[in-house]
Amino acid sequence: MRIITLTTDFGIADWFVGSMKGVILGINPLAQVVDITHAIAAGDIRDGAFVLSEACRCFPRGTVHVVVVDPGVGSARRPILVETRDYFFIGPDNGVLSLALDHEQIVVMRQIENDAYFRQPVSRTFHGRDVFAPVAAHLTRGVPMAEFGPPVNEVTRLTWPTPKVTGDIVHGEIVHIDRFGNGITNIRGEILVGTNAPAMVTVRGVAQCPVKQYYRETADGQALALVGSSGLIEIAVTNGSAAHVLGLRVGDSAVVQVQPRP
Amino acid sequence: MRIITLTTDFGIADWFVGSMKGVILGINPLAQVVDITHAIAAGDIRDGAFVLSEACRCFPRGTVHVVVVDPGVGSARRPILVETRDYFFIGPDNGVLSLALDHEQIVVMRQIENDAYFRQPVSRTFHGRDVFAPVAAHLTRGVPMAEFGPPVNEVTRLTWPTPKVTGDIVHGEIVHIDRFGNGITNIRGEILVGTNAPAMVTVRGVAQCPVKQYYRETADGQALALVGSSGLIEIAVTNGSAAHVLGLRVGDSAVVQVQPRP
Amino acid sequence: MRIITLTTDFGIADWFVGSMKGVILGINPLAQVVDITHAIAAGDIRDGAFVLSEACRCFPRGTVHVVVVDPGVGSARRPILVETRDYFFIGPDNGVLSLALDHEQIVVMRQIENDAYFRQPVSRTFHGRDVFAPVAAHLTRGVPMAEFGPPVNEVTRLTWPTPKVTGDIVHGEIVHIDRFGNGITNIRGEILVGTNAPAMVTVRGVAQCPVKQYYRETADGQALALVGSSGLIEIAVTNGSAAHVLGLRVGDSAVVQVQPRP
Repeated sequence: MRIITLTTDFGIADWFVGSMKGVILGINPLAQVVDITHAIAAGDIRDGAFVLSEACRCFPRGTVHVVVVDPGVGSARRPILVETRDYFFIGPDNGVLSLALDHEQIVVMRQIENDAYFRQPVSRTFHGRDVFAPVAAHLTRGVPMAEFGPPVNEVTRLTWPTPKVTGDIVHGEIVHIDRFGNGITNIRGEILVGTNAPAMVTVRGVAQCPVKQYYRETADGQALALVGSSGLIEIAVTNGSAAHVLGLRVGDSAVVQVQPRP
Repeated sequence: MRIITLTTDFGIADWFVGSMKGVILGINPLAQVVDITHAIAAGDIRDGAFVLSEACRCFPRGTVHVVVVDPGVGSARRPILVETRDYFFIGPDNGVLSLALDHEQIVVMRQIENDAYFRQPVSRTFHGRDVFAPVAAHLTRGVPMAEFGPPVNEVTRLTWPTPKVTGDIVHGEIVHIDRFGNGITNIRGEILVGTNAPAMVTVRGVAQCPVKQYYRETADGQALALVGSSGLIEIAVTNGSAAHVLGLRVGDSAVVQVQPRP
Repeated sequence: MRIITLTTDFGIADWFVGSMKGVILGINPLAQVVDITHAIAAGDIRDGAFVLSEACRCFPRGTVHVVVVDPGVGSARRPILVETRDYFFIGPDNGVLSLALDHEQIVVMRQIENDAYFRQPVSRTFHGRDVFAPVAAHLTRGVPMAEFGPPVNEVTRLTWPTPKVTGDIVHGEIVHIDRFGNGITNIRGEILVGTNAPAMVTVRGVAQCPVKQYYRETADGQALALVGSSGLIEIAVTNGSAAHVLGLRVGDSAVVQVQPRP
């Protein structure tokens, strides 16, 4: 247990991420710090939660996942530490951990309180450096969970949109737009298993996207849908950006018309 | 042999790069993963090839270079693994490795086929995570090359522009624009050795750039040419961006007028 | 002593940073390279100096801080190496190290001259790869300081703006704008200690920013001031960007009106 991942909205233009790494390495020189991303939009808790939930399961058991998307830093929101069967999660209790936790077997959730494991003095504005990074580093050195603070029964949960199924139609929405301009929906690809192709995804009520197997399976500039690497149906445009071509935004409707089964 | 470099067009705003690193560390916790860049323009095989060819030789022998600029992911294009005298190269067989390979002594080229070394299930859209990362990690653990797949005689080669020499004039072009706005040409600086200064580079038939020794050797805002750190002639503007001031683009002509030798 | 930090204006779209890391790992495979940032604006020595001075003290003793914001590369400017009580600093002698050094106890300053520790051949344009990276790597392998070059008595110092105090008014200015659009001033928060709230900061003579304890303590879109994580007073806008809302720029005046003490 020595891998610590970082997911933040700190960007990479300032010293914030470097400061966290310096604090971690000062406590545990053997820690292996891995960046997930620092480009979560400032304060965008929902996107931070989604990115974490997609990334975390690629890491080996025992990895400590630290998430700092924390617009309420310095206010009354609690810092929390969650042990699951496979991982540890550390971050503010604002929902940013909750999507990942939905897929994990929770062992114990704790409020982080013991300032013996904080960097002193603790600032009001940078708990990434002063609370979350040092707690993660001490954890990888073997400090027992119970040292950090008392158990809590509940943590903040995001209300995440759930697809609605009506007959052979599934109503979902775009939940993330990636670097290629692909629009990832909240609809799992399993709904297509065993169906007769061709299925069709309609975005925002207008754009018709036939379900294909891989990117660039249509003509250049044409939209398509496929099951992406996270198992979710996504919207793409061959040799282009679906975000640009279709004007996709997070929250846009995506409706899957599954063909009648044989 | 434990260094793995990554060169991709994945950007740094999603979880793609982090996922690859998680997979690698899950297989070989001692691997040292180094980012070359993740900012190759989406699907820009040529630029990925150029950046890799510039970066790879700074690394020690035995380094495993993984390149994922892979617009054809999921289609019939092959994943390949090449051992050279000094390095290993892993990526899609779309030409993105070929510029680097032009400068290496090839030992063996193999098609990656053995899915015992893949992450399961293999997605159709993210072979960086499911094929290239795990193969690189297993390779650094000592899995023999022959395990990954059969040898191949040929891999896809890019047609890269070669400068044309006519008397003391060399016709080349801009092949990369860097972060400072410098335009790097495909003309090697050796053509200037032993000549009498001043040589002159003409860009796009109009901009006159005298050959100098270092950046900022002209007045502010004035263009110049010099031999850059990769041994190629490049176009710069003192205290400014040649890309902005001269409107440089990849593919623009660059003509070196070498003065008559004594 | 095996941590090497990198602070540069190289961006992350080319191979420059990767090349430095390759050179370092080729010399010392056990070095731990940590990025502070590579997004210093091209040639912006002052901002590089500020970012380094904020980041460096989060790292454990013995860390080697390498800074390459080096518009004069290839000219007569000297490469230098400074040992302080806690750290080593390596970079061009153009002032970029000087803000950090202001806070350190200097042991010895040396000019880097011994090309036995350089990468050969040394280019005229990329001393990050050819001089600074290899010297840092050799240093972490235990090469004695005196090997690298002769001591120097003076290095270039930036003239950094000092706040001016007039009665209970402190005149300062914005010295950095961070990723969230917060404007960081050169005024230390200690001036507020022991005063009666509310203090007020006036930016550019017009924007009134009451001093608060943490971000988002005002209504959305309202400006505030607080003591940031580096101990400096900064200007923020709740749930927004002070840079956008107030049009902040580096160099803008910031005047703190401290209330009369009891």
